[in-house]
Amino acid sequence: MSLIIIGTVAFDAIETPFGKTDKIVGGAATYAGLAASYFYNKVKIVAVVGDDFHKEDIETFEQHGIDTEGLQIKAGEKSFFWSGKYHNDMNSRDTLVTDLNVLADFDPVIPENYQDCEYLMLGNLTPQVQQTVIKRLKNRPKLIVMDTMNFWMDIAMDDLLETIKLVDVLTINDAEARQLSGEYSLVKAAKKILTMGPKYLIIKKGEHGALLFDENQIFSAPALPLAEVFDPTGAGDTFAGGFIGYMAKVGTVNFNNMKNAIIYGSALASFCVEKFGTEKILNLQEEDIAERVKEFVNLSSFTI
Amino acid sequence: MSLIIIGTVAFDAIETPFGKTDKIVGGAATYAGLAASYFYNKVKIVAVVGDDFHKEDIETFEQHGIDTEGLQIKAGEKSFFWSGKYHNDMNSRDTLVTDLNVLADFDPVIPENYQDCEYLMLGNLTPQVQQTVIKRLKNRPKLIVMDTMNFWMDIAMDDLLETIKLVDVLTINDAEARQLSGEYSLVKAAKKILTMGPKYLIIKKGEHGALLFDENQIFSAPALPLAEVFDPTGAGDTFAGGFIGYMAKVGTVNFNNMKNAIIYGSALASFCVEKFGTEKILNLQEEDIAERVKEFVNLSSFTI
Repeated sequence: MSLIIIGTVAFDAIETPFGKTDKIVGGAATYAGLAASYFYNKVKIVAVVGDDFHKEDIETFEQHGIDTEGLQIKAGEKSFFWSGKYHNDMNSRDTLVTDLNVLADFDPVIPENYQDCEYLMLGNLTPQVQQTVIKRLKNRPKLIVMDTMNFWMDIAMDDLLETIKLVDVLTINDAEARQLSGEYSLVKAAKKILTMGPKYLIIKKGEHGALLFDENQIFSAPALPLAEVFDPTGAGDTFAGGFIGYMAKVGTVNFNNMKNAIIYGSALASFCVEKFGTEKILNLQEEDIAERVKEFVNLSSFTI
Repeated sequence: MSLIIIGTVAFDAIETPFGKTDKIVGGAATYAGLAASYFYNKVKIVAVVGDDFHKEDIETFEQHGIDTEGLQIKAGEKSFFWSGKYHNDMNSRDTLVTDLNVLADFDPVIPENYQDCEYLMLGNLTPQVQQTVIKRLKNRPKLIVMDTMNFWMDIAMDDLLETIKLVDVLTINDAEARQLSGEYSLVKAAKKILTMGPKYLIIKKGEHGALLFDENQIFSAPALPLAEVFDPTGAGDTFAGGFIGYMAKVGTVNFNNMKNAIIYGSALASFCVEKFGTEKILNLQEEDIAERVKEFVNLSSFTI
């Protein structure tokens, strides 16, 4: 049994008010895979890179017990590259460069040993590629989590709606929930989105935490107030990876387990933003995570 | 022993996407007083109105057990009037009319029987008037809560800083916390503001809940996700009134009691926005409040 994560494995160049990086390894599958690996030891990624991707970078995955058989390496091609600059508030950013490169015609390959997939994380990619992965799995996974963004709502809404139909959990931010549903109230937005296919909706609100909805319940998770946000890149993917990794670990899909999965995902994301790129989430200890989760408990508990 | 609330008692004319009202009774002291009256039976208000204010409106206070001896009625003058129109998102609004009228030279009178004040709520007013009230009390109250807004930071920062020095709890929103401290991170903003006088800071984030800070701890309170927000007017004042009313009821000032006070204040505020003006908070039953508080518990509890 395994957890498959599909998404980008890529190079990023990031500028924040605190500094800038050269090309560093990033991408949704990278962040989500690393985060998930802290909870579950059968994480497998599906992605594509060019031959500019270094052997050491692939070894980093393997050191975290992540199976890279589904990571295609295209000879003579270049990896996806994104470059962005964050504004002073760290909540908004300008994209400086987006070079699709190998991503332009990404055709995901599912190795035979990935067919034991029980948990599937569809990282942010074209909805059609996300759908292809679901169709290439012989058995429907027990839990499919899909992340997406406003960009696909703008240019590929029909494909997006087709893919959404097939998943269990959708993760989007509040502006995207409003765009997808046409409703301003998040309660109404959630109600509508839960008729589109997913049984659960997670609305990510960045520094304001996250909301989990099913048909009958709502859970409001806090975000840890941080003195410094060093680099927000990958925080959403880290959250999603921590979420599905924790779900794979506990093995039972229900609302209560998802509440905890959101706290664990948020804890991982709170580490992610403390350093540039993946630096902080490369070397977490179990105690670090337990300590951080305790901070979330203290932050939000009250007794009435 | 009593709880004194100083603030505006006024007329509002409100337009929202759901409808509009003629002049209805509003004002910070009105909302806060009504909210506090559900928790504590010795609420006394200090405010000023013109003789356009109706006898029935004053009786409404008395029906809620609120002492109005400190409510001055100025013959031949008009009450403060505010008119505003909310945008479709209900989070922003345009002020159409602000007629200060009696508020222009408001000199708060503290009746002798108010000198037993243990809890003092300084509703949003000029910082100088807020300070005058503190100075006219012979004994320093056990708990002074002060609400203010960006307007006073823009035009009366020195007075504001003088008044802030004298209070225990400051309640402002996130943009105001950033403006007052010059720090974007709310953690850093809170640290700075807690050196300015208050021992506790409440940052109100509207639909994203609220944060309570003291020197060593943070509490993140959720907001109840609502399908309809009918009219947000007075929600912040209702929150503050519920907060201090609950604190007066429990009688011990500490972080844990403030956490609960925030939940009760938020519960009252969630009722307030369900109808125009004070309509909904005029006739709440104890069971309504208990039920609503239970929703907050369910919304935010998890077991790790």
